[in-house]
Amino acid sequence: MEQNNKQNSDAKQYLAEIRAYIEQNKDRFLEELFTLIRIPSISSEQEHKPDMVRCAERWRELLTAAGADRAEVMPTEGNPVVYGEKTIDPAKPTVLVYGHYDVMPVAPMVLWRTSPFEPVVKDGKIWARGADDDKGQSFMQAKAFEWMVRSGNLPCNVKFMLEGEEEIGSGSLYGFCEKNKELLKADIILVSDTSMIAPDVPSITSGLRGLCYWEVEVTGANHDLHSGLFGGAVANPINVLCKMIADLHDADGHITIPGFYDDVLVLSDEERALMAQAPFDEQAYKQELGVKALKGEKGYTTKERTGIRPCLDVCGIWGGYTGEGTKTVLPSKAYAKISTRLVANQDFEKISRQFQQYFESVAPDYVTVKVTPCHGGAAYVAPLELKAYRAAENAMQQVYGRRPIPTRSGGSIPIVAGFEKILGLKSILMGFGLATDDIHAPNENYPLEQFFHGIETIPLFYRYFAE
Amino acid sequence: MEQNNKQNSDAKQYLAEIRAYIEQNKDRFLEELFTLIRIPSISSEQEHKPDMVRCAERWRELLTAAGADRAEVMPTEGNPVVYGEKTIDPAKPTVLVYGHYDVMPVAPMVLWRTSPFEPVVKDGKIWARGADDDKGQSFMQAKAFEWMVRSGNLPCNVKFMLEGEEEIGSGSLYGFCEKNKELLKADIILVSDTSMIAPDVPSITSGLRGLCYWEVEVTGANHDLHSGLFGGAVANPINVLCKMIADLHDADGHITIPGFYDDVLVLSDEERALMAQAPFDEQAYKQELGVKALKGEKGYTTKERTGIRPCLDVCGIWGGYTGEGTKTVLPSKAYAKISTRLVANQDFEKISRQFQQYFESVAPDYVTVKVTPCHGGAAYVAPLELKAYRAAENAMQQVYGRRPIPTRSGGSIPIVAGFEKILGLKSILMGFGLATDDIHAPNENYPLEQFFHGIETIPLFYRYFAE
Repeated sequence: MEQNNKQNSDAKQYLAEIRAYIEQNKDRFLEELFTLIRIPSISSEQEHKPDMVRCAERWRELLTAAGADRAEVMPTEGNPVVYGEKTIDPAKPTVLVYGHYDVMPVAPMVLWRTSPFEPVVKDGKIWARGADDDKGQSFMQAKAFEWMVRSGNLPCNVKFMLEGEEEIGSGSLYGFCEKNKELLKADIILVSDTSMIAPDVPSITSGLRGLCYWEVEVTGANHDLHSGLFGGAVANPINVLCKMIADLHDADGHITIPGFYDDVLVLSDEERALMAQAPFDEQAYKQELGVKALKGEKGYTTKERTGIRPCLDVCGIWGGYTGEGTKTVLPSKAYAKISTRLVANQDFEKISRQFQQYFESVAPDYVTVKVTPCHGGAAYVAPLELKAYRAAENAMQQVYGRRPIPTRSGGSIPIVAGFEKILGLKSILMGFGLATDDIHAPNENYPLEQFFHGIETIPLFYRYFAE
Repeated sequence: MEQNNKQNSDAKQYLAEIRAYIEQNKDRFLEELFTLIRIPSISSEQEHKPDMVRCAERWRELLTAAGADRAEVMPTEGNPVVYGEKTIDPAKPTVLVYGHYDVMPVAPMVLWRTSPFEPVVKDGKIWARGADDDKGQSFMQAKAFEWMVRSGNLPCNVKFMLEGEEEIGSGSLYGFCEKNKELLKADIILVSDTSMIAPDVPSITSGLRGLCYWEVEVTGANHDLHSGLFGGAVANPINVLCKMIADLHDADGHITIPGFYDDVLVLSDEERALMAQAPFDEQAYKQELGVKALKGEKGYTTKERTGIRPCLDVCGIWGGYTGEGTKTVLPSKAYAKISTRLVANQDFEKISRQFQQYFESVAPDYVTVKVTPCHGGAAYVAPLELKAYRAAENAMQQVYGRRPIPTRSGGSIPIVAGFEKILGLKSILMGFGLATDDIHAPNENYPLEQFFHGIETIPLFYRYFAE
């Protein structure tokens, strides 16, 4: 008890010093972050290829400035990886910080209230693409590191690995990890790329969904036809695609791909009861989203639907005439981008094959269907007994005054399962985003309070972890 | 018999004179037509508003040059109407020629092999938007008129009415006809805006389908969401729209809108047997379209599916991320442009209300659905006993050496039913297009042979009609 009290009092002092440092340096922190945000590093768009390199270079400079002994931009088969490290004592444990400097596309531009790559601070939030995901969050790691180095409080070795392909599936990072196992040796991976429940309800993501993504193309006639002369006699690929997509769910919201649920880990009633304790206000949730009703798989709560159950969504669809006014056409082709979120134990490569085979096999003979697998990744679960998990719990408790709840996130960071497989390392997903940050959407934002709380929490994590 | 032989021999002489005139003037004919085609008179796109006026003015000049006593551009509530006339004797019958100078949009541009508004002649065809529909076809009327005037062979009075809104539903022409009933007094309307079966199988369109067109918008959450954090718990408007569209047809290809078929005229077995005599090579049809199988309403042949049965097609669909690569998003909105083709006796305004009510009423409570009716028009049937119909039959027989087959076209010219209602006039749909002309699609084209055969046939029609 005495020991605990002393620890708490030490931690409080430590936190006070961090807070003072943040207060003195916060304008500089933001200005440095903004230099990253201003680089439109959209990994899915070819035209931004040079921006990926610029953003990596800028990160290298910032890591060096923050106190890394070594920082470099390392080539991969795709976008480069920024690697940095500071070794204080080879005998001490090593934290490998992972983040990504690439961002999502910004379309539809018309819905942005500010320019996506010109960050502004308004209403206590940073507004920009990447403000949260993941420039803002990974930058907290750099500034927490800076404080530990400058104040002489760094208790262990640190490595940084920042990639440029997270939003497109981390394709090149798997190979990079395979090649650089020795360089990346560490005891734990620390990631700030997730959300917590609410500003006053801290949580740690103990599980992530996996992901599988395809583009499908349905072709009817070999060219666009007059919808009057041919309508009714020739298959319309849009109508056919709609039917095929509709048939991917049954009336209860279950996904109909044969074998899709075979490997899904079924949680015990006890585990489900524990999860159900997390606060959730369905009315507020619906109001925030502006919907009258929710929709999901029968037999599961909303939190379960995003946390422990897989789902299938069409992320995009297009075909025929989509311009102003009317055009009567029976198009030749229709397209959709379809993704599933997977849960623990589902093999994304198996799911990818299952979907492709199924979708192509159910194509009626009056159309041709082509499925192109895009990226994918496995789900991930972190055991709550890990020392690093407990360190994260303690750190957040100090800053937020409340024990964080372990949550299963509906989102995916496929490479996290990859790290476990290739590097043999577990990851701690200590993220400070909020559900209202609109990541991947127009008007992405990140509350300054969360940004600063993150910088406060991270050194405490190091302290508890290295104890 | 003797009388018939003499008539035939006279007609042959008459035809030879027309052919000689075409031979002497064909380069000029094409150059004049190209001046019309080069004006991008796309009625559905606001930016082309000035082009509509330019195109109408050009038509006025061409009618005057062809021999009209009076030619003017007359205002309507929308795009102007070009009116022209030549009266040779008020006691003689009057033919009212109807055509349209507006064209369809050109998207997707990437599929055009030549510039859509820079006509080229290649492989015996004119390639351009409007080459057939309806600049090329209506221009045949002007040049046939020119020959009759210049050679002293005009046997009756002629009026021209060329509108600029056919491709968007002829909205302003209904009011124009109401206001100008006296001006438009005639005995028959002659229209070249349809197709014949094949270059060696002449046909006359004895029926047209009606049309009804809507844009639908499905809204889920009030903004785009992260598909991982919300996927599975919140309705995806694309998935919902797909299901709603899929449900518009049952397994037999019947349309499920309640009451949709109530007013459909059911043809007798005898009529169906007659229709079935028209040559139709299903293998060639499929090969031409590049499809392995056809798809349509159960219990009807391909020709019946486009001729005597209504159909429903999605002309365009869009929503979510449709750019390069992948983006995981749960979009807020999804859209579709949906059209039905109607048959004789179906009331397009009733159908429009039925669809809107039905589609909005079946919307699940987790989305909001908005249906915006666009344009529509009734179906039309021409009796084969009409003197004008027989005149068209005789004229085509002279030129093509074969009796034309009466066909029911799947396409729509809604205003044709409007003419009957407002002006009390039947229309003869003597068109020279071919199914391969790709009207409304990229690479629209019109064979020169059909263009010249049209100019040959029209004066023969006047001759037989005025007899």
